Amino acid sequence: MYKRLLNRLLISHRNYSYSRSIIDIIKTGQIGETISVQGWIKSLRKQKEVTFIDINDGSTPTNLQIVLTQKSDSKISVGSSISTSGVLKQSPKGQNEVSAENMVLIGECDLAKGYPFAPRKQYEPEYIREHLHFRPRTRKFASLLRLRHAANISIHNYLDEKGYFNIHTPIMTSNDCEGAGEIFKVLPDNEKLLKSMAKENQASELVYFDTKAYLTVSGQLHLEAAAQALNKVYCFGPTFRAENSKSRFHLSEFYMLELEQAFLSNLDDLLIIVEDLIKSVTSNLLQKYSDDIGMCTQNKVSHKWIDKPFIKISYKEALNILSNKLNKTVKGDIVKEHELALTEYFDQVPVFVINWPKNQKPFYMKEIDNENVAAFDLLAPQIGEIAGGSLREDNYDKLKSRLANNNSQLDWYLDLRRFGCVPTGGFGLGFERFLQFVLGIDTVRDSIPFPRWPHNCKL
Amino acid sequence: MYKRLLNRLLISHRNYSYSRSIIDIIKTGQIGETISVQGWIKSLRKQKEVTFIDINDGSTPTNLQIVLTQKSDSKISVGSSISTSGVLKQSPKGQNEVSAENMVLIGECDLAKGYPFAPRKQYEPEYIREHLHFRPRTRKFASLLRLRHAANISIHNYLDEKGYFNIHTPIMTSNDCEGAGEIFKVLPDNEKLLKSMAKENQASELVYFDTKAYLTVSGQLHLEAAAQALNKVYCFGPTFRAENSKSRFHLSEFYMLELEQAFLSNLDDLLIIVEDLIKSVTSNLLQKYSDDIGMCTQNKVSHKWIDKPFIKISYKEALNILSNKLNKTVKGDIVKEHELALTEYFDQVPVFVINWPKNQKPFYMKEIDNENVAAFDLLAPQIGEIAGGSLREDNYDKLKSRLANNNSQLDWYLDLRRFGCVPTGGFGLGFERFLQFVLGIDTVRDSIPFPRWPHNCKL
Repeated sequence: MYKRLLNRLLISHRNYSYSRSIIDIIKTGQIGETISVQGWIKSLRKQKEVTFIDINDGSTPTNLQIVLTQKSDSKISVGSSISTSGVLKQSPKGQNEVSAENMVLIGECDLAKGYPFAPRKQYEPEYIREHLHFRPRTRKFASLLRLRHAANISIHNYLDEKGYFNIHTPIMTSNDCEGAGEIFKVLPDNEKLLKSMAKENQASELVYFDTKAYLTVSGQLHLEAAAQALNKVYCFGPTFRAENSKSRFHLSEFYMLELEQAFLSNLDDLLIIVEDLIKSVTSNLLQKYSDDIGMCTQNKVSHKWIDKPFIKISYKEALNILSNKLNKTVKGDIVKEHELALTEYFDQVPVFVINWPKNQKPFYMKEIDNENVAAFDLLAPQIGEIAGGSLREDNYDKLKSRLANNNSQLDWYLDLRRFGCVPTGGFGLGFERFLQFVLGIDTVRDSIPFPRWPHNCKL
Repeated sequence: MYKRLLNRLLISHRNYSYSRSIIDIIKTGQIGETISVQGWIKSLRKQKEVTFIDINDGSTPTNLQIVLTQKSDSKISVGSSISTSGVLKQSPKGQNEVSAENMVLIGECDLAKGYPFAPRKQYEPEYIREHLHFRPRTRKFASLLRLRHAANISIHNYLDEKGYFNIHTPIMTSNDCEGAGEIFKVLPDNEKLLKSMAKENQASELVYFDTKAYLTVSGQLHLEAAAQALNKVYCFGPTFRAENSKSRFHLSEFYMLELEQAFLSNLDDLLIIVEDLIKSVTSNLLQKYSDDIGMCTQNKVSHKWIDKPFIKISYKEALNILSNKLNKTVKGDIVKEHELALTEYFDQVPVFVINWPKNQKPFYMKEIDNENVAAFDLLAPQIGEIAGGSLREDNYDKLKSRLANNNSQLDWYLDLRRFGCVPTGGFGLGFERFLQFVLGIDTVRDSIPFPRWPHNCKL
């Protein structure tokens, strides 16, 4: 009885006849075979006898031309979704096309009802960004999304092959890290819940966790705890800044790759990892996603830097070069203008600036001498800083003395230096800025699907 | 001049002599060769002439035995980090070991100074969890971290190969989704900033974004916007619930894989995707990470279900089975006890329960008839629900009528049905519960590096 019931209930894994994806048709389609395909109409030209319809299904930037020999549904328009089948042929221009006798309309797309993108029109990124939920339907941004996916998985696979383990460092943390004040706090949006959980006279922001909770500004400190056991670790996730910045390089929510490696005591070793990672991931994109790269960059972005060694200069050398180049004494902060001047000076090759003054960097960076720390910034042409890192201070007393106000929240971090400590080093790479650099994206808001910045948290 | 400067500044990519990782020594080490290795001491036995030291470097659960023929540093103890080199030999038991003449202590680990883990002692998970920053140093949890990494990257690669694109859906959102009240709100922790940005009489929680902002409870709605252009998409990131639940299955911050596919109009097609994904990822772990699986599960977890088709029953059939099995009429909610009873009934094979009453499911699920929606829950043995999904309501009028209070926040979501809409379906898989299921982890708090639950937000 039981067996029979079981058999009856088993899912029948029938061969469900899926339509083919356009990328699959392009790669493996045989001239003469009958295929089914679905997608959204990208352009439409009606002639007396036939209608030429370009469709796209999101699998590739390349459209597939459908040549429809019957009268087409009058409701079919650019933006509407359709299903069709026909014989795969070669067009006079040598490209694949489908000769179809009919076409089924799945979803209309009526411009008159408020669809924001008209056929054959070019729109500015600002306008497209106003319609975030439709933005993936624009050709260039669809390519950006595929490339963002490809870069993401390429980074994971690169690090996996090198023996790094992905650690999910926390998004909500009780540690305000560097206390820079550019931090979001988090609490339940539920008065009833808070009331039911509150201890006497407890401030509402303390109730849920018994401590204030913030959104992470960096996974580094947590990553170090993992590196002191697993050796080679990274995190790659969302990071937050509550700044009032509307620059083309800042978001309130962005992605950062952070890597930490144990038994590492030489800054150069860290630079080699950063340079190889950036070059490998970029090469992979250029090789495997050339169509999307072409669409996204409009072939206007140079990647010549990929074959050249990155430049390495000290902070002091950087100031000297800048003073000479700009004909004025540059000291103190290296600002965005300086960053761009340096990469320009070095012929659009990325530049590592190393050995920074201690007072310009966070407390955890390892001292070289009384004045300087073993840190780097990596400056990319046209973009400026895309990564930064350092060796970490592994001397318990030095670290403790640099921790402001004897912050007891970070006792656990000091602990890492007290028990079986090994030297570590690591860096953070801004993922959106990396994409801006490789894909020539003017504003960071166009490098992420759902950008958040002051006064903007759409959807 | 410029060229010379350039050459001088180039990073010299010298062959830096890294120590070998233990996994590399195990896999490729040649008996007789001299190797350098670094790690943390896991056990130590001093004899008259020699000291036997097991070290681990995080690359694998397997320790490497060092046979030290010189007198060892008296400060060397379990937990301390060391560096050594010597000749690779085969032990009498046939395992690799290193015959070393000396050993350099890198970092002490003095139990007397407060290190919480004494040698040769077993600790309960609750105790280990009290020391989150040292937890990765415990053998079983180190295996969990490597397996979590492996499962994570395996999911990404599985989906990439099948043509899905990873979309980073937003963490901060102005959309409170189902309005279930179990949501965190977010605002800058900076009175000065808020004051400088505030419009007249604006509530502080509205100031930064001009709208209230929440932490995401699901990326599904945003994913649907991408699916209506890219077709096959997923997100895999942190998700949040402000519940006051301390159950062994709930966290305030957890990871969820969510997938959405366009041109999908049959629930069975979705079930096939879920089942194949779960089986493929699990197979991959069992094959490639058998050592870590053994360490983590203590070989007490059965994976026989992997060779069996998952069960599929309707919600109504589930109630009948439960009523018979439990000798009482079961109606309404299927609670945890019922979920476990169902998988027990089906001999510890995962069970899809499909076709749910409309009033038990969210507004966006597609109606089969007036009473039911095309939805599923996937129940795993010992764990209960690990995934859930549905076809999505693609009829604009039906969807609008089910949206409570004409929530204008979701006008954009309704828009997706108005312009070029195609049927879609998707699901969410709880990553920690999946790990609990595959690795036999009793509480979800031991499946994530930095668990957050009510009154607990350590580090």
